[in-house]
Amino acid sequence: MGSTYGTLFRISTWGESHGGSVGVVIDGCPPGLPLTEADIQQELDRRRPGQSDITTPRKEPDTVEILSGLHEGRTLGTPIAMNVRNKDARPSAYADMKSAYRPSHADFTYDAKYGRRMAEGGGRSSARETIGRVAAGAVARKVLDLAGGVEILAFVESIRDIRLPANFSAISRASVEATPVRCPDPETAERMIELIKQVRSEGDSVGGTITCVCTGLPPGLGEPVFDRLEADLAKAMLSIPATKGFEVGSGFAGTTLLGSEHNDPFEYHGGRIRTRTNHAGGVLGGISSGEPLVFRTAFKPTATILREQATVTQGGEATTLMGKGRHDACVLPRAVPIIEAMTALVLVEHWMRHRAQNHSFTFSQSSLQK
Amino acid sequence: MGSTYGTLFRISTWGESHGGSVGVVIDGCPPGLPLTEADIQQELDRRRPGQSDITTPRKEPDTVEILSGLHEGRTLGTPIAMNVRNKDARPSAYADMKSAYRPSHADFTYDAKYGRRMAEGGGRSSARETIGRVAAGAVARKVLDLAGGVEILAFVESIRDIRLPANFSAISRASVEATPVRCPDPETAERMIELIKQVRSEGDSVGGTITCVCTGLPPGLGEPVFDRLEADLAKAMLSIPATKGFEVGSGFAGTTLLGSEHNDPFEYHGGRIRTRTNHAGGVLGGISSGEPLVFRTAFKPTATILREQATVTQGGEATTLMGKGRHDACVLPRAVPIIEAMTALVLVEHWMRHRAQNHSFTFSQSSLQK
Amino acid sequence: MGSTYGTLFRISTWGESHGGSVGVVIDGCPPGLPLTEADIQQELDRRRPGQSDITTPRKEPDTVEILSGLHEGRTLGTPIAMNVRNKDARPSAYADMKSAYRPSHADFTYDAKYGRRMAEGGGRSSARETIGRVAAGAVARKVLDLAGGVEILAFVESIRDIRLPANFSAISRASVEATPVRCPDPETAERMIELIKQVRSEGDSVGGTITCVCTGLPPGLGEPVFDRLEADLAKAMLSIPATKGFEVGSGFAGTTLLGSEHNDPFEYHGGRIRTRTNHAGGVLGGISSGEPLVFRTAFKPTATILREQATVTQGGEATTLMGKGRHDACVLPRAVPIIEAMTALVLVEHWMRHRAQNHSFTFSQSSLQK
Amino acid sequence: MGSTYGTLFRISTWGESHGGSVGVVIDGCPPGLPLTEADIQQELDRRRPGQSDITTPRKEPDTVEILSGLHEGRTLGTPIAMNVRNKDARPSAYADMKSAYRPSHADFTYDAKYGRRMAEGGGRSSARETIGRVAAGAVARKVLDLAGGVEILAFVESIRDIRLPANFSAISRASVEATPVRCPDPETAERMIELIKQVRSEGDSVGGTITCVCTGLPPGLGEPVFDRLEADLAKAMLSIPATKGFEVGSGFAGTTLLGSEHNDPFEYHGGRIRTRTNHAGGVLGGISSGEPLVFRTAFKPTATILREQATVTQGGEATTLMGKGRHDACVLPRAVPIIEAMTALVLVEHWMRHRAQNHSFTFSQSSLQK
Repeated sequence: MGSTYGTLFRISTWGESHGGSVGVVIDGCPPGLPLTEADIQQELDRRRPGQSDITTPRKEPDTVEILSGLHEGRTLGTPIAMNVRNKDARPSAYADMKSAYRPSHADFTYDAKYGRRMAEGGGRSSARETIGRVAAGAVARKVLDLAGGVEILAFVESIRDIRLPANFSAISRASVEATPVRCPDPETAERMIELIKQVRSEGDSVGGTITCVCTGLPPGLGEPVFDRLEADLAKAMLSIPATKGFEVGSGFAGTTLLGSEHNDPFEYHGGRIRTRTNHAGGVLGGISSGEPLVFRTAFKPTATILREQATVTQGGEATTLMGKGRHDACVLPRAVPIIEAMTALVLVEHWMRHRAQNHSFTFSQSSLQK
Repeated sequence: MGSTYGTLFRISTWGESHGGSVGVVIDGCPPGLPLTEADIQQELDRRRPGQSDITTPRKEPDTVEILSGLHEGRTLGTPIAMNVRNKDARPSAYADMKSAYRPSHADFTYDAKYGRRMAEGGGRSSARETIGRVAAGAVARKVLDLAGGVEILAFVESIRDIRLPANFSAISRASVEATPVRCPDPETAERMIELIKQVRSEGDSVGGTITCVCTGLPPGLGEPVFDRLEADLAKAMLSIPATKGFEVGSGFAGTTLLGSEHNDPFEYHGGRIRTRTNHAGGVLGGISSGEPLVFRTAFKPTATILREQATVTQGGEATTLMGKGRHDACVLPRAVPIIEAMTALVLVEHWMRHRAQNHSFTFSQSSLQK
Repeated sequence: MGSTYGTLFRISTWGESHGGSVGVVIDGCPPGLPLTEADIQQELDRRRPGQSDITTPRKEPDTVEILSGLHEGRTLGTPIAMNVRNKDARPSAYADMKSAYRPSHADFTYDAKYGRRMAEGGGRSSARETIGRVAAGAVARKVLDLAGGVEILAFVESIRDIRLPANFSAISRASVEATPVRCPDPETAERMIELIKQVRSEGDSVGGTITCVCTGLPPGLGEPVFDRLEADLAKAMLSIPATKGFEVGSGFAGTTLLGSEHNDPFEYHGGRIRTRTNHAGGVLGGISSGEPLVFRTAFKPTATILREQATVTQGGEATTLMGKGRHDACVLPRAVPIIEAMTALVLVEHWMRHRAQNHSFTFSQSSLQK
Repeated sequence: MGSTYGTLFRISTWGESHGGSVGVVIDGCPPGLPLTEADIQQELDRRRPGQSDITTPRKEPDTVEILSGLHEGRTLGTPIAMNVRNKDARPSAYADMKSAYRPSHADFTYDAKYGRRMAEGGGRSSARETIGRVAAGAVARKVLDLAGGVEILAFVESIRDIRLPANFSAISRASVEATPVRCPDPETAERMIELIKQVRSEGDSVGGTITCVCTGLPPGLGEPVFDRLEADLAKAMLSIPATKGFEVGSGFAGTTLLGSEHNDPFEYHGGRIRTRTNHAGGVLGGISSGEPLVFRTAFKPTATILREQATVTQGGEATTLMGKGRHDACVLPRAVPIIEAMTALVLVEHWMRHRAQNHSFTFSQSSLQK
C-alpha cells in the first residue's frame, strides 16, 4: 500500500528505473477539468534530466501518454492513468551493484525488505518514480487553479553553505526559472552553480534546502488531530528521495525564541483577519490560517559519488564500489517541481475534504436536474 | 477522518478539553497481548500535568478505564476502547476567549474550519487530546516489546539555547526520568529548569527540541514510496501540538556536508551488515537499516503567555487578551511520552504491514487446528 | 481494522457482550448538526431487548452517554464518542459454552482466528455490538434529514413462509411501528407473531426477510466501479449478524425475466427524468437514479435454540449443548432499526463523497470570512 | 476513490470502453511470486468477447502488457501495472446514445453524477472495465495458490428458468470449461445455449445466477464486524456490472427453515473440526470455518436489446432508441472469470490481514540476515 497517496484525490504510482515504464493513476479527480497531455508534459520537462549543464546528462524525453479519464479535453471524473516509457537505460552501468551495496542507497534495505530487488538504476528506489508524482501533481495544480488561484512556488534556498539572503524578496515563478539552479537571486544562483560544477568535477556531491510558499489558500484547510496540514506536508516532503528534514514557519530556529517574540498577533487588515507576523508559517492547530504557507525541506548530498567507497557484498564480504553512470551532483534544482507536485497533492486532498465536511447541510443537486 | 491514525493498528481518538472525556479506540491490536490498566496509567502519569514544579499546577488525575477488548488479562483481538474522564475544568478562565482569538492558538482557524468551537480550554485543540495517543501508544509499546525488544527512548535535547552537549552519551530511561525536565544530563537539566522557572516568572514561555532514538529494529520496516518510515514519523511528529519541524539522522545540518563526508560505508560487524556511521539516522530509501533510528522534533514556545497581547474579536475589532489559567511555560518535558507514543504507533503499524507482505507464501495455520 | 466503517463519515465500534461497555466513535460528522442523547436513545430503544412479548425478556436499558463532540446542543465537527454500559450480564448461563462450540455460532471461528475468545454471551460476536452501529446511524439519519429529506424505512417482509402480500402498499413509519413484529400489514403481522410464539414455545427459531425503501435521494450518489451504491449496501447488510443474502430491485427473481420485460423505460414526469418501472431498485451503474432505493436482506433462523444439539469441544471430542439464556426466537423485529442505521451510514458516506467530488471548482469560503 | 479495491492487496483500475486503454495497478503484492504475462492473458482470454457463438462477435484481442513490478520472472514487491489497449472501437454505433438515455444503462446516472460522460460504448460504465479486475485477480490467484492450494471455482447455475439440477455434483474446472456457457452439466448447458441463441435471435436478452465455491481455505479468515468475509464478498459481487443479488450458504431459501433444521452440527472428522452440513456456506460470524465457501450471484438480463425502446433525451423529450452494436444476449458465461477474479481479490486481502494480525509476536526476520 506504500505506493498510494491520498484518499479523495488518490494516486497510485508504479515503475522501476529500468523497467518498462513509470506512471500513475489518479482516482477521484473531479469531472469537468480541462486537461491535456501538454499540461502534464510541461511539469515533467521541469523535472527531466539533461535540462542544463548542472544536471545529469542522461537523455530521457519522459513523454507522457494519458491512457484514460479524458473526453473532449476534459476530465470525466473517472481514473486518469498516465504512462511514461523508460528510455536510455544502461543496465551495464550497474553490473557491480548487483552484489555490492552502494553506500547510503537503498540497495541493502530493499534486499532486507523484499528479499530481492532490481539492481539496475536502483529499480523502484530510483528518483524516476517521482515522474508519476509530478504528473499527478500537474493535475492537482489545475484543480487548485480553478478552485481559486492558489499559487505554489518552490525555490532552492541553500546549496551546502551558500544561502539565499534572508531579506531577498523578489521571488516569482519567473525569477526561479531564470536560472538552472532554480534560486531566484541571480547572484546567489551563480555561486551555487559554480559550487555544483566544482564539486562534480571532484566526483563529489552536495545537498541543500528548498523553501516552498503557497499563497491564496483560504483559512480552514487541514484536519485535526492527525491529518494536520503541516503533518501531511511533512509526510509528503519526507517521502521524496534524499530528504532528511522538514520545518514549517519558524521551524527549528523558532525553538530559540520566547513565546512573547514568537506569537503572531491578529489584526483586521484588507477586509479579513490576518496576523501581523507569520512565525506560524500559515497554519494554526493544523489548519490553514489564510497567511502564506511557508515550509522548508532538507536534502542530503547525492549518495552517488564518482569515488571509490568501502562497502560489503550481499554475503557480507568487504569490497569497494566506484560510482559510474550519469548522476546529478546536486538534486535540488530538479527537486523543485517534485516539491510543488507533492504540495499540490496535499492541498487538493484537503480542499476536497473541506468540501465534504463543511457545515452546509444540503444535497448538491446534480447539474442535470436543475 | 482526521482523528484516525494507522491502518492495521488503527486508533481513533476523541475528546475536548472541557467535554465529558477524552479517549481512544484501537482497532487491530493482535490478540493475546497481556495488558492491564496499570500499563496504560504508567504512561499517562508521565504525560500528566502537575508532575513537578516546572509543569502546570493543574490537577488532573487522568485515570484510564479500559472499556473493551480485554479478557482474563489479555487482548482479545477486538477493539480496545479506553476512556479518561475530564476533571478540574475551569471554564470561567476562558470567558474572554470566546469572542477574542488567542494569538498563535487555533481559535481562529477552528472557527474558520468548523464555523463553531468549544472555547473552554481550547476544546479539541487542547493538548488534552494527546491522552488518547499516549494510551494507545502504551499498547503499541507492549506489542513491540513482545515482538522483539524494540526500545524507544526520547529526551529533551534543547530548551531555547541550552543544549545537551553533542558528545553526551549516558542516555537511558533512568537518566532521562531522573530530572523533571527529561534531559539525561543532570548539569544541562539543571540549567534548563532554571531557565523555565525564570521565563515562567516573567509570564513568558520557551520551546526546544526533543530527540528520539529507537534501537532493536530489524532492517526492512517502512514502505516505499509514500509510506517511508521517516515520512510516517514526520507526519506523526508534526501532528503533535506545538511542533514546527522534524529531521532524521543528519537532518538540516547534513545539507552542508559533501556526499563523500555524508555517506555511511557498509561493513560486516557483529554477525550482520552495519554502517560505520549513521548519518542516515537508521533509514535508507524509506526502510529501516537496522541501525538506531534517530530523529528530532522542534517545538515552538508555548503560545499561552501571561502577558497582554494584541488580537481581534470574531468580528474583527482590535482588542487585547491577557493569558489566564494554569499553563506550562515549556511543554517539552511532558511531550517526551507523547513522542514515544506516536513513534510506537508508527513502528507497530509498519511491523504489522511487514508481516502481511513479506515473502513467505504460506497460510498461517490457526493455533487451534495444529 | 474490521471494526471501522466508512471513510468520510467513519465509525469505529467497540465492545463485547459481557465486557464493560459497547460504543462507537464517529470521526467526520459535519459541524453544526443539532444533536442530543435523546436522538440516539430513541433509536437504541427500537433495537433494545424486552420491547415486547416476542423478543427476548432480557432487561437491558442500553442508556447512551455522549462523551465528546457536542457543544451547546450542536456537533463541533470533532469526534463523537458514545458509550453504553453493559448491564444484566449472566455469565453463568454460558459456562458450558467455554469449551464446547455452539452450532452455527462464531465460537469456533473466533477461536480459529484469534486463538482466544470471551465465551460469555458470545463476546464480540454477540449482536450487542450492533448498539454502536445504531447509535452512529441515528447521527447519520439526522445529517440526511437536514441534507434534504431522505427517508429510510425498513420493515419485516417475511417470517419463514409468511409473507407480506406483494401488492401491499400502506407502508409508513407508523404502520411498521404499529405491531411488535414490524410488519406493516396488521393481518400478516398477526400471523407472524403467532408463528414466532409457537416456534419459541418449541424451543426452536425462525428467520425471514426485511425490505428497506429509501426515498428522497437525488440522482448521482454512488461511486463506480467498486464503491457502487448497491455494493456498499450489500456489504453493510451482510455485516449484520445472521444475514445470508442481499438483493436490490428485482434481485434473484429478476434473473428469470427477459431484457425486454426487465428494462425500465425513461420518461419525463413531475419535472424530472424518471423511470416508468423500477426493476433497477433505484440504482443504475452503481449510482442512484432518483427512484426509490429498494433492497431486501435475508436472515437465517436464530442459531440459539433451546434444544440439545450435537457438537464438539475445543479438543474435538463429541458432546452435546443445550441452549440456555434468554434469546430471541426471531431476530427480525429488532433487526429493522439496525438495517436502517447501516443504510443511513452508507448514504451519508456517499453524500459526503458527492460533495467532495462534484464538478464545481470553487473553494467553499468559510462562514467566518464572508 | 471508487476505482480502488482492497487495502493490503490494493488495486486501482482505469479505462473507458472507447478510451486509450483499460488497466490496473496492484499496490501490495508480496515479492517473489513467479509471474508472466501468460498467467494474466489466460484469464483475460476466458473473459474476452468472441470466444464462442453465444457471446458477442466483437473481436478484441485484449492483450495485456505488464508495465512494472517484475524482475527475472518474479514480483519485486513493488506496484504491478498492467495495461490493455482498446481495439475495434466503433464509436459510430453509439451516435444515438449521446443525447438519449439507454434504458437500464448508466447513461443517465453518469450524467447526473459527473455532469458529463463518454457516450461511446458506455465509457467507464462498460463491462470493459472488468479487464483490470480480471488481470489483478489472476495475480491474486497465484498468491493463493502458493499460499496453500485454495481453489476458486465459479459456474453458471441458472439461465432464466433453466437451472443446474440441485444434486449435480460433477463440478470441476474441466467440466465448467467444457461448454461455452460454463455450466458443468452438459445436458443443462445444451438447453441454456439453445435458450440464449433463441433469445438473441429475437433481439432480447436473459439473466441468471452464478455459483462460486472455494475450497482449501483455512478457518480464521474474515474480520468482524464490518469486514466479515461474506460482507466483503457481497460488496465484491455487487460491484460487478449487471448484478442484482448475493447469497451465501442457504441464502434466501434458508429463511424458510427452522433453526433446528438450519444449524450445522460440529463434528471431528479427518483430523479436524468440521460441520456435518454447510448451510452456513463456509462462514460463521464473518470468519471462514474451513468448510467450502459457497455463494451465489444474481445477474439481470443484459440491458442492451436489439429492439426499439421508449426513453427520453438529456433534455427530457420522449424518444425511442434501437439497440445497435454487438452485444452479449447473456453475460453470464463471460462473468464467470470476473467472479473468480473478485473472489481471489477478497481472499488474498483477508489472507494478508490474517498474517498481519495473528497472535505470534515475533519480528519476521529478513531473509538476508538469517
